[in-house]
Amino acid sequence: MPEDFIVTPWEVSGDIDYSELIKRFGTKPLNQPLIDKITKAAGKDHMFLRRGLFFSHRDMDLWINDSEKKKKVYLYTGRAPSGPVHIGHLIPWMFTKYLQDAFKAPLLFQIPDEEKFVFKDGLSLEDTHKWAMDNILDIIACGFDPKITDIFLDTEYSKTMYKEAMKVGKHITFSTAKAVFGFKNENNLGEIFYTCMQSVPAFLPSIREKTNTFCLIPHAIDQDPHFRVTRDVAPKLGYPKPCAIHTKFLPGLGAKDSKMSASHPETCIFTTDDAKAVQTKVGKTFTGGCDTVEKQKKQGGNPDICTVYQYHYYLFEQSDKDLKDRYKKCKAGKLLCGNCKGDLVNYVNKFLKKHQENREKAKKKIKEFLIRD
Amino acid sequence: MPEDFIVTPWEVSGDIDYSELIKRFGTKPLNQPLIDKITKAAGKDHMFLRRGLFFSHRDMDLWINDSEKKKKVYLYTGRAPSGPVHIGHLIPWMFTKYLQDAFKAPLLFQIPDEEKFVFKDGLSLEDTHKWAMDNILDIIACGFDPKITDIFLDTEYSKTMYKEAMKVGKHITFSTAKAVFGFKNENNLGEIFYTCMQSVPAFLPSIREKTNTFCLIPHAIDQDPHFRVTRDVAPKLGYPKPCAIHTKFLPGLGAKDSKMSASHPETCIFTTDDAKAVQTKVGKTFTGGCDTVEKQKKQGGNPDICTVYQYHYYLFEQSDKDLKDRYKKCKAGKLLCGNCKGDLVNYVNKFLKKHQENREKAKKKIKEFLIRD
Repeated sequence: MPEDFIVTPWEVSGDIDYSELIKRFGTKPLNQPLIDKITKAAGKDHMFLRRGLFFSHRDMDLWINDSEKKKKVYLYTGRAPSGPVHIGHLIPWMFTKYLQDAFKAPLLFQIPDEEKFVFKDGLSLEDTHKWAMDNILDIIACGFDPKITDIFLDTEYSKTMYKEAMKVGKHITFSTAKAVFGFKNENNLGEIFYTCMQSVPAFLPSIREKTNTFCLIPHAIDQDPHFRVTRDVAPKLGYPKPCAIHTKFLPGLGAKDSKMSASHPETCIFTTDDAKAVQTKVGKTFTGGCDTVEKQKKQGGNPDICTVYQYHYYLFEQSDKDLKDRYKKCKAGKLLCGNCKGDLVNYVNKFLKKHQENREKAKKKIKEFLIRD
Repeated sequence: MPEDFIVTPWEVSGDIDYSELIKRFGTKPLNQPLIDKITKAAGKDHMFLRRGLFFSHRDMDLWINDSEKKKKVYLYTGRAPSGPVHIGHLIPWMFTKYLQDAFKAPLLFQIPDEEKFVFKDGLSLEDTHKWAMDNILDIIACGFDPKITDIFLDTEYSKTMYKEAMKVGKHITFSTAKAVFGFKNENNLGEIFYTCMQSVPAFLPSIREKTNTFCLIPHAIDQDPHFRVTRDVAPKLGYPKPCAIHTKFLPGLGAKDSKMSASHPETCIFTTDDAKAVQTKVGKTFTGGCDTVEKQKKQGGNPDICTVYQYHYYLFEQSDKDLKDRYKKCKAGKLLCGNCKGDLVNYVNKFLKKHQENREKAKKKIKEFLIRD
């Protein structure tokens, strides 16, 4: 029996059983035939598909069908700002970039700067705006095409958004919101209404005029409740249900079973971390190694429970052959944790160096991406 | 025991006992000393005060105090568009115009074109927008000073409004909304959130920079639940509680005990009615007269239960002396219903002729009043 776990847009905890989550949420597993279909249509594979970091979907097959028919599809993803960006946040964005390149798909990137404001105590709209302007650098650094990418803050785009959100709101009863999000009498009206705003980019009329078929939303699985509601409402407003593809969460650095969470900085690699910080955090990370070097050389390590190996697996060891070697060598006691961590530190720092350069360049590109009312 | 009645922002029914309503809502009666104080500060009296059409308030005395100290005060009122304007709607606006003139007070006039959209079936945002642009002519026709009056539609001003509404929403729990508005699980998220938007003009930062003291909201008493919430929230956002002054409802034309309601056109004098329509509607109105002319000449009529007399009293018989005469003559059987109705028709048509001229001129003035993001 798996330990129980919680995955909501506001809480992710426990030991997540992703197969069980697919059942609970009513999504579909991203199986090999569909991965092959995506890869073929994109003309290029992606490690996140190959390694199962994206694991679930809703109607992804329909989106691919339409793109194959040369119909105009588009992408939508987002980031609710309340702190710095860590590499876990980058996963859906990097995958969105892959899809944008492959399908020449326009992208709406929502920055709901009111979301964390209403859900968290002690956070002002000025705070979230500041983080929005910081986080936008990480978004742009992912390399989206400015010609077909619009990034917007909800509070700066609400002349466009609000009336559409009210159209959504008219079709969602408090009963439904309670059932989907677990709202209680203590929740505030901002929290209760917010989901309407998150629905809007999935059918925004101004983009639909240009792209008259499906919207695809690459996102972390915890956001699925929002889009479940969107999929119910969209047809009532005369739009197709948006499609979605879901990513797992990265494990946290540091102690065993920790989650990567910006509220616990020691568990995250932030995109602005320097080489030394990365070394320290990776250094303290739980592995599948033995107590002593001698023991490990003899018995081998256990990559299957190792957080460092998961980082190699999901994000950094791009070559399947090198990954296999790493796995085998670990099991055989030929690759020790210190070295394996050293490799990860090198990979991460190489990645961050490039990202930080792009982030720096992004400061001059904001105007090319940001739309306001 | 008074018959029971309902007064909410969405339903007004039954035989309203206004003294009881003051107790239920927790407002204060507009007593003679305060009426004298308002009249003195304004430098001019107003029939609506003298005749008790405005009957209740919240902190109106504080607003007058500040205006007497030459502090900058402002006014806020509104109109939720879903159909044509009738003369009942004009009452708070005409009174607002009196206050604007007397106190040189800036006015924010909100047209929440999303409100009726979320609360009513079969009404689109295009419909409410159409009515907004129609109703704005009636608003302008009331004679507000364009230099200090801003009229806006929520959907066109939501870049300014939405983020302020979220600040309000953060401070209202669903519990509170349930208690104040009687929301149930079946209410939709648009309905539940809407009150946050109605709060915003009571403290809108852009106007408060210019007018750093009290906001006064002249409005029909059914809207009080919204502003009760606003008064709870405003201090939490660093603003003073808005003040308010409340009007009663006009009785409906036609049958006894009918309400003036745009959903029942026969009960209303619309601002666009022609002379003949007015004659027909007033002609069918319940009076305090007797079955036959002979009987009435002998016994006299009863103005105290007469709808036609109430129209003379509250709106059209401006001279107190003429009103007294009318009352006496009716009681004495010297003024018959036909003649009294004829006088009312003349008054109404004279009023409407002028209003319709102003309404026509308003078409060219919209730009002077309307603000958009």
